[in-house]
Amino acid sequence: MKQRILVIGGVAAGPSAAAKAKRVNPDAEVILFEQGEHISYGVCEIPYYIGDVVTDADRLLVYSPQRLLKEKGVVAHVFQTVEEIITSKRMLVVRNLQRNRVDEHRYHKLIIATGSRPRGLGIPGEDARNVFRVKSLEEAYSLKKYVVTEKVRTAAIVGGGYIGLEMAEALTGIGIRTTMIHRSDLPLTGLEMPTREAIREQFRIHGVEFAARQQVQGLTMDGTGKVTEVVTVSARYAVDLVIMCVGVDPNTDLAQAARIRCGSRKGILTDQRQATNIDTIYAAGDCCEVKNLVNNKWMYIPLATTASKQGWVAGENAAGGSATFKGVIRAIGVRAFDLEIAQVGISSKEANESGFDIVTEEVVGNSRVGYFPGNAKVHIIAIADKKSGRLLGANVFGENGAVLRANTLGVAIQQKLTLDDVSRLDLIYTPPYAPMWDPILITANQLRKRLASKTGRR
Amino acid sequence: MKQRILVIGGVAAGPSAAAKAKRVNPDAEVILFEQGEHISYGVCEIPYYIGDVVTDADRLLVYSPQRLLKEKGVVAHVFQTVEEIITSKRMLVVRNLQRNRVDEHRYHKLIIATGSRPRGLGIPGEDARNVFRVKSLEEAYSLKKYVVTEKVRTAAIVGGGYIGLEMAEALTGIGIRTTMIHRSDLPLTGLEMPTREAIREQFRIHGVEFAARQQVQGLTMDGTGKVTEVVTVSARYAVDLVIMCVGVDPNTDLAQAARIRCGSRKGILTDQRQATNIDTIYAAGDCCEVKNLVNNKWMYIPLATTASKQGWVAGENAAGGSATFKGVIRAIGVRAFDLEIAQVGISSKEANESGFDIVTEEVVGNSRVGYFPGNAKVHIIAIADKKSGRLLGANVFGENGAVLRANTLGVAIQQKLTLDDVSRLDLIYTPPYAPMWDPILITANQLRKRLASKTGRR
Repeated sequence: MKQRILVIGGVAAGPSAAAKAKRVNPDAEVILFEQGEHISYGVCEIPYYIGDVVTDADRLLVYSPQRLLKEKGVVAHVFQTVEEIITSKRMLVVRNLQRNRVDEHRYHKLIIATGSRPRGLGIPGEDARNVFRVKSLEEAYSLKKYVVTEKVRTAAIVGGGYIGLEMAEALTGIGIRTTMIHRSDLPLTGLEMPTREAIREQFRIHGVEFAARQQVQGLTMDGTGKVTEVVTVSARYAVDLVIMCVGVDPNTDLAQAARIRCGSRKGILTDQRQATNIDTIYAAGDCCEVKNLVNNKWMYIPLATTASKQGWVAGENAAGGSATFKGVIRAIGVRAFDLEIAQVGISSKEANESGFDIVTEEVVGNSRVGYFPGNAKVHIIAIADKKSGRLLGANVFGENGAVLRANTLGVAIQQKLTLDDVSRLDLIYTPPYAPMWDPILITANQLRKRLASKTGRR
Repeated sequence: MKQRILVIGGVAAGPSAAAKAKRVNPDAEVILFEQGEHISYGVCEIPYYIGDVVTDADRLLVYSPQRLLKEKGVVAHVFQTVEEIITSKRMLVVRNLQRNRVDEHRYHKLIIATGSRPRGLGIPGEDARNVFRVKSLEEAYSLKKYVVTEKVRTAAIVGGGYIGLEMAEALTGIGIRTTMIHRSDLPLTGLEMPTREAIREQFRIHGVEFAARQQVQGLTMDGTGKVTEVVTVSARYAVDLVIMCVGVDPNTDLAQAARIRCGSRKGILTDQRQATNIDTIYAAGDCCEVKNLVNNKWMYIPLATTASKQGWVAGENAAGGSATFKGVIRAIGVRAFDLEIAQVGISSKEANESGFDIVTEEVVGNSRVGYFPGNAKVHIIAIADKKSGRLLGANVFGENGAVLRANTLGVAIQQKLTLDDVSRLDLIYTPPYAPMWDPILITANQLRKRLASKTGRR
């Protein structure tokens, strides 16, 4: 009998898993269910589509169901919601939203790639027609249409994380006066202070209002079903548009109902083969927690790169192959107006919580030779373990040469290099692209000195 | 008695060593001898000074003797040539070129940092007043003056290496019609074929004449002491200016006369402490051969980064400290008009010569998300060892995002990562700076497939 591999979820990990499964076992029947209209699209590109940086919306779609079938041999059903996983029968209960019909589909192997869902505030008005999230392509199209047809002039972004930051740039870029409403003093709570201050400064320069230490308490509605005000304890923000960016949670109700083991953040826990605790069921992508290789802890770090790689691994193993995904270090980059911003490894807060005794250092180096045209300052905030001398994490920011330098530091972190090792890295020096002492080397040398002075070592 | 540390050579490794020695032992007397007029300057920046990219010549000078004394406590004597090292007496014989006097200077520790010297062709006319090398700041000033005052309209660059390439861009940039005369089919003999072809194409686009397979046989002189023609076996090139870039050799006559051990390329061989075979004598920089960490072979790879690091190590050890320099992988970057070009690790030729059974792959990826404004193709030519799966070397080129990506590959090479390891690297994805599948990951995955298909492994 033909192997039947079912995949739940069609955005990132799902198509990646399905295509890989079919490639590894071309005889298998591989079927993917997606509750939305589209599959295989770039969620990370949505802010740039809203901001008119990417103008052709079709470019966000990597595969249509037709193309996925033709090129990868995977059948994708859209507008179909999986309502139940009956593990005892190896069966899915699937609602066809267009025909309003429920079907049962048996599987030999199942891959769960249900992704994440945006968190809400649990207050009335969140579903008003001018309140948007940045999550699905459908919603992106609606938002774009709304912005254009309703002549939006002012917006509030609720939440100051990565997506909020990208949306602040996007909306400002198309002439919308934007206020970011955030519960902390500074945006990007997971980053180090100098990075967060630099982002705040970008907001000031580019006219984004930053409303610090504000908890949203209510949304004032008008008679037409639109939010007209965002209300916090101490202020009211009159706006034409609200973007909710208060984070995401793993979308695991279905998995939890099927008694698939989840972690403290409610993300599915898998082994290195992306296998869940239930035989024949794999999971990949934003619905999973992931092992952080730096502190060896399970974390919830939903990222498209991880989703794709886990998808490959889940797909290969579901099809009878053998592949592993060992974990992540967390490698994130973002543009904040004039700045490249990157984070690799764990933060100083996470390092402390993980029991490391840390030393941190902020170094400001040059992206190129100092007096070369186009040189920009590169800031590196590095976090190292005093005991082992290991580099644990870093923020890197600057007008150029920051994100790709972070990748070099990322490899050092992933390979558990010490500051001594990092200081011995043979890095390129060429005036147009890198100074003789790369900021990475300066950082390692400075931290070594700090360590030596603290521990009495030379 | 006060420790006396003498340093021969004042460009890169010398000042670095001297400053470090003084820092480690502030009581020591540290004296540096430089035969030229200037110390501590950026040789790598000279082409950009000639090309008017860097207009302020003073910026090339990092330290004047006055500043080196004031800030680092190092005495630097310029216009003083060391004529002999008398190891039995721990003494230098030094000619003061300004006073035409010979002095003897005793040392407790000696650091040799005599650098490299440009190779010649050994033909008449090489010292004509319109023939220049790109080596010292003095010569750079003369060249700049000559170009401006003599209204140079045409130039020949003899030699097609890194410096020749930078000079071709520099001269073209200031409106001089430039011909590169090179003995091979393509420029940059040490790079892989696709990279060399890309550079050749840049020459075509930007109007640099590339005279392939041409050996210079003679230089035609006029009555005023100027070269008017460069003559090869098959052609004659009428020019106003000649730049000789046929490579450099370690400047070790002095060291060899003192029986300091040198390698096959005549560079000084040191241990990891930068100590030579003669007690109390250290060496650093372009006068040394260096251990390549990829194939564990001694090579001659004169680079300013290596010189600085070796200088630190030699200086620290000469002053009684303990530091080591383990070697290089070779990490070189260069701009070729619109292209960033980088080489890390060993070449396919060197890999073959070192006994590796290699597999190579050229991958063309994106520097950013493919449809993002400013995306450029990134070419990676990677070389791996079939047996171990280790990455041995890579060329990276493209209009942006090439040099810093090469550094990430460089760390992988230096840490002896296999293609499996590289494929597991957690790299940043963010539309403005990096695609979801970084070219580095695509390269590793492609090479893994190639290896699997060749060896029967999956």
